[in-house]
Amino acid sequence: MTKTSNQMWGGRFAAGNSDIMEAINASIDFDQRMAAQDIAGSRAHAAMLGAMGIVTDSDATAMREGLLTVLSEIEAGDFPFSKQLEDIHMNVEARLKEIIGEPAGRLHTGRSRNDQVATGFKLWVRDQFDAIDAALAALMKAFVGQAEAGAEWVMPGFTHLQVAQPVTWGHHMLAYAEMLDRDRARFADARKRMNTSPLGAAALAGTGFAIDRDMTATELGFDRPASNSLDAVSDRDFALEFLSSASICAMHLSRFAEELVIWSSAQFRFVTLSDSFSTGSSIMPQKKNPDAAELIRAKIGRIFGANVALMTVMKGLPLAYSKDMQEDKEQVFDAADNLMLAIAAMEGMVSDMTANVSELEKAAATGFSTATDLADWLVRELGLPFREAHHVTGALVAMAEKGGCDLPDLSLEQMKTVHEGITVSVFDVLGVHNSVASRTSFGGTAPVRVREQVARWKEHLG
Amino acid sequence: MTKTSNQMWGGRFAAGNSDIMEAINASIDFDQRMAAQDIAGSRAHAAMLGAMGIVTDSDATAMREGLLTVLSEIEAGDFPFSKQLEDIHMNVEARLKEIIGEPAGRLHTGRSRNDQVATGFKLWVRDQFDAIDAALAALMKAFVGQAEAGAEWVMPGFTHLQVAQPVTWGHHMLAYAEMLDRDRARFADARKRMNTSPLGAAALAGTGFAIDRDMTATELGFDRPASNSLDAVSDRDFALEFLSSASICAMHLSRFAEELVIWSSAQFRFVTLSDSFSTGSSIMPQKKNPDAAELIRAKIGRIFGANVALMTVMKGLPLAYSKDMQEDKEQVFDAADNLMLAIAAMEGMVSDMTANVSELEKAAATGFSTATDLADWLVRELGLPFREAHHVTGALVAMAEKGGCDLPDLSLEQMKTVHEGITVSVFDVLGVHNSVASRTSFGGTAPVRVREQVARWKEHLG
Amino acid sequence: MTKTSNQMWGGRFAAGNSDIMEAINASIDFDQRMAAQDIAGSRAHAAMLGAMGIVTDSDATAMREGLLTVLSEIEAGDFPFSKQLEDIHMNVEARLKEIIGEPAGRLHTGRSRNDQVATGFKLWVRDQFDAIDAALAALMKAFVGQAEAGAEWVMPGFTHLQVAQPVTWGHHMLAYAEMLDRDRARFADARKRMNTSPLGAAALAGTGFAIDRDMTATELGFDRPASNSLDAVSDRDFALEFLSSASICAMHLSRFAEELVIWSSAQFRFVTLSDSFSTGSSIMPQKKNPDAAELIRAKIGRIFGANVALMTVMKGLPLAYSKDMQEDKEQVFDAADNLMLAIAAMEGMVSDMTANVSELEKAAATGFSTATDLADWLVRELGLPFREAHHVTGALVAMAEKGGCDLPDLSLEQMKTVHEGITVSVFDVLGVHNSVASRTSFGGTAPVRVREQVARWKEHLG
Amino acid sequence: MTKTSNQMWGGRFAAGNSDIMEAINASIDFDQRMAAQDIAGSRAHAAMLGAMGIVTDSDATAMREGLLTVLSEIEAGDFPFSKQLEDIHMNVEARLKEIIGEPAGRLHTGRSRNDQVATGFKLWVRDQFDAIDAALAALMKAFVGQAEAGAEWVMPGFTHLQVAQPVTWGHHMLAYAEMLDRDRARFADARKRMNTSPLGAAALAGTGFAIDRDMTATELGFDRPASNSLDAVSDRDFALEFLSSASICAMHLSRFAEELVIWSSAQFRFVTLSDSFSTGSSIMPQKKNPDAAELIRAKIGRIFGANVALMTVMKGLPLAYSKDMQEDKEQVFDAADNLMLAIAAMEGMVSDMTANVSELEKAAATGFSTATDLADWLVRELGLPFREAHHVTGALVAMAEKGGCDLPDLSLEQMKTVHEGITVSVFDVLGVHNSVASRTSFGGTAPVRVREQVARWKEHLG
Repeated sequence: MTKTSNQMWGGRFAAGNSDIMEAINASIDFDQRMAAQDIAGSRAHAAMLGAMGIVTDSDATAMREGLLTVLSEIEAGDFPFSKQLEDIHMNVEARLKEIIGEPAGRLHTGRSRNDQVATGFKLWVRDQFDAIDAALAALMKAFVGQAEAGAEWVMPGFTHLQVAQPVTWGHHMLAYAEMLDRDRARFADARKRMNTSPLGAAALAGTGFAIDRDMTATELGFDRPASNSLDAVSDRDFALEFLSSASICAMHLSRFAEELVIWSSAQFRFVTLSDSFSTGSSIMPQKKNPDAAELIRAKIGRIFGANVALMTVMKGLPLAYSKDMQEDKEQVFDAADNLMLAIAAMEGMVSDMTANVSELEKAAATGFSTATDLADWLVRELGLPFREAHHVTGALVAMAEKGGCDLPDLSLEQMKTVHEGITVSVFDVLGVHNSVASRTSFGGTAPVRVREQVARWKEHLG
Repeated sequence: MTKTSNQMWGGRFAAGNSDIMEAINASIDFDQRMAAQDIAGSRAHAAMLGAMGIVTDSDATAMREGLLTVLSEIEAGDFPFSKQLEDIHMNVEARLKEIIGEPAGRLHTGRSRNDQVATGFKLWVRDQFDAIDAALAALMKAFVGQAEAGAEWVMPGFTHLQVAQPVTWGHHMLAYAEMLDRDRARFADARKRMNTSPLGAAALAGTGFAIDRDMTATELGFDRPASNSLDAVSDRDFALEFLSSASICAMHLSRFAEELVIWSSAQFRFVTLSDSFSTGSSIMPQKKNPDAAELIRAKIGRIFGANVALMTVMKGLPLAYSKDMQEDKEQVFDAADNLMLAIAAMEGMVSDMTANVSELEKAAATGFSTATDLADWLVRELGLPFREAHHVTGALVAMAEKGGCDLPDLSLEQMKTVHEGITVSVFDVLGVHNSVASRTSFGGTAPVRVREQVARWKEHLG
Repeated sequence: MTKTSNQMWGGRFAAGNSDIMEAINASIDFDQRMAAQDIAGSRAHAAMLGAMGIVTDSDATAMREGLLTVLSEIEAGDFPFSKQLEDIHMNVEARLKEIIGEPAGRLHTGRSRNDQVATGFKLWVRDQFDAIDAALAALMKAFVGQAEAGAEWVMPGFTHLQVAQPVTWGHHMLAYAEMLDRDRARFADARKRMNTSPLGAAALAGTGFAIDRDMTATELGFDRPASNSLDAVSDRDFALEFLSSASICAMHLSRFAEELVIWSSAQFRFVTLSDSFSTGSSIMPQKKNPDAAELIRAKIGRIFGANVALMTVMKGLPLAYSKDMQEDKEQVFDAADNLMLAIAAMEGMVSDMTANVSELEKAAATGFSTATDLADWLVRELGLPFREAHHVTGALVAMAEKGGCDLPDLSLEQMKTVHEGITVSVFDVLGVHNSVASRTSFGGTAPVRVREQVARWKEHLG
Repeated sequence: MTKTSNQMWGGRFAAGNSDIMEAINASIDFDQRMAAQDIAGSRAHAAMLGAMGIVTDSDATAMREGLLTVLSEIEAGDFPFSKQLEDIHMNVEARLKEIIGEPAGRLHTGRSRNDQVATGFKLWVRDQFDAIDAALAALMKAFVGQAEAGAEWVMPGFTHLQVAQPVTWGHHMLAYAEMLDRDRARFADARKRMNTSPLGAAALAGTGFAIDRDMTATELGFDRPASNSLDAVSDRDFALEFLSSASICAMHLSRFAEELVIWSSAQFRFVTLSDSFSTGSSIMPQKKNPDAAELIRAKIGRIFGANVALMTVMKGLPLAYSKDMQEDKEQVFDAADNLMLAIAAMEGMVSDMTANVSELEKAAATGFSTATDLADWLVRELGLPFREAHHVTGALVAMAEKGGCDLPDLSLEQMKTVHEGITVSVFDVLGVHNSVASRTSFGGTAPVRVREQVARWKEHLG
């Protein structure tokens, strides 16, 4: 809508009631994206009507072939969508009538617009589940690839963005594989839950025609027909669950995007992003703006905004169908588009980014990051109570700080002045490589554990 | 984005990094709506550069005239927007260069993309404030028109959707005038607050060129230049305040839309909507679906969803400009379009709807809706304590209920058997017309008060 | 927080930095609700430490018994929670130390606050999944009970709150059983997905102690330990998925609540709510405010608000733990409490409400609600094309409207004047009872279908 | 609500309908915070009733004094709030009756619970506007104090978290003064808009008693009585506008909180937070977790969540009062508490933080951050077209990069090899101090401009 048309709505006298009503009521501008799904639904219905003898076989065949013609016209891009015909369903039906004539009128036997809309929209959303699943698998592979390359690279593990303990690059990358795997599972559960066919619920009460809802459900890949016709036409759970799951997924992406923005700052220099996903300055060669990361970080806004929008729409709607529900599609379309785009851009960035291994390792060693390893060693090897272990560790850190060095740089003799029980084996846990190598508990950051997980993911992802 | 392109993002190998980056990064598809505002900003900047001697007068003139040419090309609809040129600003600049040559390169002196974007977007949003203000005034007139017509029509006043006390139709209509008037004031405050010019803030730090920011601010209708360049380029409060105010306004619309849906049900029959804003059934003549009312009710979803989206985007962004902020425009565009459309449709519906006066009055009289009037009368005229007044009222209601009549149908004698102090003047407050006539406190529902308010609104609205 | 204390935060000089920091930082005021879960986690950890020989058996036993003592003190309500000790974990640990002395210090071996918090919170949320599942089952039984009683009662099926076609009361009730069953499945999927143990992830990197994470996972009822320690301490998906699922469930409740409010209006009179869940007026006997229904309708606000809150918090947080995440608990606590309360109140209302069967039937027959049945019959039995069937139906409706009667009140002769092919069997689908009886497609509203579904649900719900 | 009570709601048989209804219906647990406001409203009403002769002077005096007694009991903390009495209004009224007897029953003359609730809640919210205004002024002073101290300190100005141009510390601090000043203005506008008195609107229709609404409005500090009684009792705009404004304010806080978290990382080291608002590690002396900053960053979640909650509640509510609206208070209470706390904590942090001036300056000089100054100088002083100026600058940057130095470290001779027109005055803009000093446009980062703004703010803040 242009600004000019927008001003038009400022007054009915300027625009006229019929223009305003058409503008608020017609959905063809956006629901034409569901053309293929609408036609698939209609073709399944036509076949069933023929099989059940509700229409003749020749009528059924004419419908099915005519619908294919309509589809090819739409895919060719030369279908003249009409706003007067309001929505994709009426546009298709009107064109079918032009092509096959009178039998087109029998296609609507035993169904109505309400179950037709629900069917087409469900099929569209189901396609998104599948597309997103594949995209997430590709992104997971990118993370696993980084993890495999850097299973032993050491970097700071942060809490509160303060260096806490050294971790391995591979371990950090695989944290995102975990998140994305939950996303896939969440989407898969939602897809399974939504896979029931509304077709044949008719307006809201079912129908007296002897339709076979199992047959249409099967042709359309649904697990079964929905069990209650009122629910079937008024249910938008599948859209809300899609949006909820997409929001959580977008939140995960926003976290890594934030890390990329921070990591590519001049102060961190942990990664170098590829030129493909950043923009530079013609005169400041070191400036490399992580535009794609920032845009991905922002996508949670519109995706979760869509979730809020549809939840607000559905609040307090009495059964069965209310026109409010027409607001469902644009939200889901926009969220699906943007999630797919964000995943694809993230996959590109992850695949192409370069870890600055030496910077990571240097940063990992700052702030006496292996102090907890030392304290743990004192507890584990010397049997010191925690309180005393902390006291000894604090004294050694103070000694190192005073000497301007890190803990592993202290000599055994120096250490023994603080606690004489300390042995040379303490050096096995000091230093960032020793630290990460020692954390071999299940799920821990040790390279050996990371390699196991990489192997598991590679098998899982195929 | 079509489904086909959407699938493309499923994998970078299918699409290629550069296509994905262009898809996520370029804004020209939507920010071309800001063309007129961008050009206005550039023209003001050019004039100032000339006036301050930063560019020659002839360069300044060439820029200003060239920009008008670009604008006319865009308005004529034959401007070839280029996605490679990313956004409206680059598209305009590149075309200007084709038209006027080298001087086009001097237009960017003393400004940058960051302040240019902020300026153009502010101007666009400011136009919306003005358009919405006018639309709301028109809608208020529609409500006031209904109020004037029905200042004395009696209808049920509901609490909990239960009949509580009779009110006048005019009084109910004017409740919405109050809400919309607050909306206008809220928008007006926001417009005033946002009316400072970012132009000349440059990238983020200001500039060393001797620019005159007051001059550009004045030409663009801003009250003054923004006082801090970092804030000027990173501020999106104006968009958030627009969205917040739009959300509250949409909430008001949703309330009346809900009332229209309920009122036009077969069970209520309080109003008849015009055919323009409802859809019928070819075979069920009494069915008149209030489609427009339902769609208006739903609009709060996407408008408030846009507010959530942008608030989420802005959360935790460090200064100054981050690319995340590019997500601001589509949300505001969509919210503005839909609010304008909802107001226009509501204005049409309110103007054209017909109150079913007899149904309203009949409904107002149900449920002993004047019982509180009776109790108040007992307190006021007979000096009864509330507790006793309630007891007497309850007894009289029981008597009426038993007799299958309403309170005003009881005779004075019957009433006196319950409390002998009751006089004939009690009938002055019984019956729905007497009830509403008696509620003459300021802001009350009495026709005399409603007429005063109608007069006030008519003067206010001009 | 009282208003007085609130004013205190108006200035640090009034309050002092330490008071402000304590107020914003301490979580003991709310996380004490997780006491039982925290102690269960610690007891499992203690047992494992003993079994693995990391602490002595006697220390392990002392810890486990001491923790039980602490739990009993908390459950008795006489535990002195200390705000200086910040959170439930420190409060418990400090008390344990008082009880068992030095061994208490060894409990933290091989874990840290980060995994401890995640474990306790997960256990708490898991309990909610279980409690809500049971509550939803009870509510479903209430709907099924209503459906069984009224499998044959006829009521209007609405679209756009306009009477569209007759449906059965039982069919309408079972629509909610479908929604709630999806809710249960959604919660069950989420519960399964979240059931991995963070315990032993330690601060973020795992640990060098030879802990057995499978053992603690098993004791705590988790399916397995979480596979990545960074993810384990920074994951709040389980809370977000709980909130998303709770929001969708609350949306379902809001829809029936809205119906109850409308249905109990004087204009609809479809149901009478029990006195337990409504409030009356001492002087207006027919006024029965559906307070509980309105409050349930409103609960989606705070539950979905909590979802927004936590999603906003999690946006863009770098790994691993950030203090922002402390904001997770209050949102989930409040949402869980209010969802449970809303379900319980809804169960009470559904169980106790009385359908006004005659009003329902009368309303179902308004507006020529069986016109579509007539049109379908003409198509089905006489083979008329839809267009002609609609034409004939329209003519018959006009005839009935003119005659002030409903369709089944027309005589066969009258009907034959419009289309002579009509036979007496047309009366089999006219009239609301015939209409619903004819809609026998799977999922349709026919009593026979409803009874089948009731039987299915009763078996399913046990 | 404890977990135990929560389980109780799992089944009505366990809890009983009356317990469930009390739990969902009663508001006394939270609305007791409005005690002082409720009593102020009642006292104003009592005085007016006496002045108008609706009650006797002695009754009015008894009410007013009795209410003071109730208030003192509540403030003393020994008022026995009763859940059976549902809300604060009934609790106060019941106690008043115990104290002054029968005249207490006359207090409700000419008002009802609906206008009473709206009045008390408005007064409470109004107090928050005032408290927040003072807190924001204090926070602004803290930022201005930092700006004054560091008007000349140089730091990196970031876009995309990449160093873009040098700015001054004072300039950056004042960017937040701008944001907070808009917040104050936004709150002030909202406070002004909401300052109309609902008292006397009665249940919804006004009253027949000869009340003087101007008199009560004046005593309560309202500007005037609300003009429409239906609107007066069903309006919650003031709460929504409070929440919207609070959300935008919280967003501003989240941005500086994010900066503090990043700036206090080991990689940035721009600031050192005081110990009061951070937590350390007993063994890692350099680790200083910015807990308060993180918690402030998170507060936008619950504050904006509250906005979503109440907006969702209000969507589609028919006039006038519905019980749904009882959900308004807890959201506003929680948002107000947390915003006040966040502002106070931020004020403490800003006042006490220490800028690491040398680190800031060092960081400002990285990445050839004055390259744009050089390009601007070439345009301004040598009249080069932008394109050529960029070319020359790029060559000089390449030269510096190759030489391992910054731009100001190049000699004039070296520069002349790239463009012979360059003169010694170029050094006036190179180097970060020269750069910031040169940006003297209004709103620019030059110390002279910052000092002017500091002076303006100090005068403004008093």
